[in-house]
Amino acid sequence: MSDGLDAAIDRLAQFNDDPEAGGITREVFTPTYSEALEWVAERMRGAGLETRLDAFGNLWGRWAGSEPDAPRVVTGSHVDTTLNAGRYDGVVGVLGAIEAVRSLRDSGFVPRRSLEVIAVAGEEPRFGTGCIGSRALVGALGPDALEAMRDRDGVSLAEALRGAGFDPARIAEARLDPDTVHAFVELHIEQAAVLETHGEPIGVVTAIAAPHDLRLILRGAATHAGATPMALRRDALAGAAEVMTALERLARESASGTTVGTVGVLRLRPGAINVVPGEVELDVDVRDSDLAAREAVVSGLLDAAREIAGRRGLEVEVEPIVEDTPVQCADAVVAAAEAACEELGLPYRRMTSGAYHDAMILAAEVPVGMIFVPSAGGISHHPDEYTAPEQLDAGVRVLAGVLARLAQNPSR
Amino acid sequence: MSDGLDAAIDRLAQFNDDPEAGGITREVFTPTYSEALEWVAERMRGAGLETRLDAFGNLWGRWAGSEPDAPRVVTGSHVDTTLNAGRYDGVVGVLGAIEAVRSLRDSGFVPRRSLEVIAVAGEEPRFGTGCIGSRALVGALGPDALEAMRDRDGVSLAEALRGAGFDPARIAEARLDPDTVHAFVELHIEQAAVLETHGEPIGVVTAIAAPHDLRLILRGAATHAGATPMALRRDALAGAAEVMTALERLARESASGTTVGTVGVLRLRPGAINVVPGEVELDVDVRDSDLAAREAVVSGLLDAAREIAGRRGLEVEVEPIVEDTPVQCADAVVAAAEAACEELGLPYRRMTSGAYHDAMILAAEVPVGMIFVPSAGGISHHPDEYTAPEQLDAGVRVLAGVLARLAQNPSR
Repeated sequence: MSDGLDAAIDRLAQFNDDPEAGGITREVFTPTYSEALEWVAERMRGAGLETRLDAFGNLWGRWAGSEPDAPRVVTGSHVDTTLNAGRYDGVVGVLGAIEAVRSLRDSGFVPRRSLEVIAVAGEEPRFGTGCIGSRALVGALGPDALEAMRDRDGVSLAEALRGAGFDPARIAEARLDPDTVHAFVELHIEQAAVLETHGEPIGVVTAIAAPHDLRLILRGAATHAGATPMALRRDALAGAAEVMTALERLARESASGTTVGTVGVLRLRPGAINVVPGEVELDVDVRDSDLAAREAVVSGLLDAAREIAGRRGLEVEVEPIVEDTPVQCADAVVAAAEAACEELGLPYRRMTSGAYHDAMILAAEVPVGMIFVPSAGGISHHPDEYTAPEQLDAGVRVLAGVLARLAQNPSR
Repeated sequence: MSDGLDAAIDRLAQFNDDPEAGGITREVFTPTYSEALEWVAERMRGAGLETRLDAFGNLWGRWAGSEPDAPRVVTGSHVDTTLNAGRYDGVVGVLGAIEAVRSLRDSGFVPRRSLEVIAVAGEEPRFGTGCIGSRALVGALGPDALEAMRDRDGVSLAEALRGAGFDPARIAEARLDPDTVHAFVELHIEQAAVLETHGEPIGVVTAIAAPHDLRLILRGAATHAGATPMALRRDALAGAAEVMTALERLARESASGTTVGTVGVLRLRPGAINVVPGEVELDVDVRDSDLAAREAVVSGLLDAAREIAGRRGLEVEVEPIVEDTPVQCADAVVAAAEAACEELGLPYRRMTSGAYHDAMILAAEVPVGMIFVPSAGGISHHPDEYTAPEQLDAGVRVLAGVLARLAQNPSR
């Protein structure tokens, strides 16, 4: 089984718009993406799945259950990538799901509920916002958004849809009826080094953290770096340094123990070695699956920024960026994953997903869960992204166990 | 007198390559600069000075003394600007010197030593390095440098010289014979707010600080901002924040009380809100007129950076940028300035120049001194740069007093 998935990942990596860069570039709704998706569909059919594309370009593969009217079990992820990315992010959840279905079928398993594998279109943010395929599934993409969302070349999502053979006016047809879905399960690489650090092969995700992102702007005075004594400075960057240290401390001391706080973008003006920085913008990302703990860190940060700015004679301004709600995974999916791990004798860790996934969007309407496999060195969105064949194999075996349990689940 | 200087500053501000931007753009060796210089020469002649351009384009105006073979007294500054600059930086020292000479002549003063006013070419760094006119005067610009130094459009200094009518092969003829110079005095705006803060009209500069500039590179791991727990991060920016705070503390606590430390440039990679910064470059400027105190701060900073990096699992690299030697002003010039202030009843402050000036380059070969007038709000290199007419007037009166004393000075 592992050789099958690892070899399939290699094959899919050949669909690449920028092989010279060393990584994979396969953005949604490009010709290369369409070719890759057709290859995935062929592989689904090879595993006995009946394939179809929905009105937004999400690829579905169906294994009809013995009770075809019972709410189905859906599993999958995405096969689009960021620029110069790795080979595993998303891909593991689609090709791994096909392997899981194949192994269940080979074992003689007969599902009561139908099992469906999905390759969701556009998890990566080619058009600025991620998870557009799953947003279409939950009805969160209106006609305005299709025109407003543009890629870095100015192509709108509507134009890209048309270019890929879909009619933007009909995307409502991709809307999922939540009553027809029993659960959604996503197998994914961890994208961090928690499992590797603890030497555990499987993560059972209990919650998906959501970000509260904001921009902090500190304004001081851009004075001469040689001529202005330390006591007369209003140095926006020196103030920003204190704010960043406060953020790190607040996140580390957060009540939940799981809050993370990051300044990933810093812009300063004027940006000359002989001028004291007069203005600094910090793009701040605070995440947690525990909403109260996250908001306590954000509010502590804003208090600290105002205290620091006041003491240093700086002005402070706060601009909102995004504020999402964390998701709790469905007990039934978590229980199925734990049972599968125990049956297979695989150690596992209950953990939170710090990253966004399609599961987080779909959770608005259907029960979701996720299974993680380790990422070597925690590296992701990079050519060095890596998960070993035996780790992929363990993930597929757990996923198969979860699907088998959920497919036979009598409730609803 | 003040009206004369203030009005002259207004007139010179009309020579401007980018008036729409709100400030003054008059870079050395441009046609606009040549026109401005011709206007300055005409003004020098109006004050009774005999003008000439040297082989590097430095403009000289001479008032022959009663002992024309005695080493002369030189005063001046520059009339080139940075981009979108103010109207006072440099200009005050050239046009103010002409006013000082005019007032001395009007008062019936007869100098023993010749008095010369100079508008030095290219104090601002159009070609990357500043003070090129004074570097030519002290023989510090070789033929290689003329070809290697280029402006932002790729024009070499040699090409620019030719374009302005000078022969790069002959710039050695601009070399000053130090034995012919008794002292160089430069009147300049402070470019900081020390005088304004203390309500003092005049600064008597006792030393010119010199920078030790270096680049600190911190390398950690660019991991997922959502997925990577705080305890597993190697966040280069969080480390940089600690380093910046350490620099500020070291400069504030420096033994001299005059050290300044600035991070004016910060580059981070990859620079995305959802990625922990993996690499940060800090361009650090540490200055003091006290070399030992400055070097103690630099070495304390490097120790702190290594300690912080070690504790956080970061790599640290240090690249040199520039390391100059501070200059002590000549006792004779400082004494003349203090005597002039006392005679005029003007309060003054003995102070260090934190900024580079032509005087710092010329100090390698001749005794130098500087007189500062206040800069409103400490603002410089900006359209809002401002010194009030009465403050300019005070500066010119002090300069006249200094020139009168030095011109009659019997020593050497």
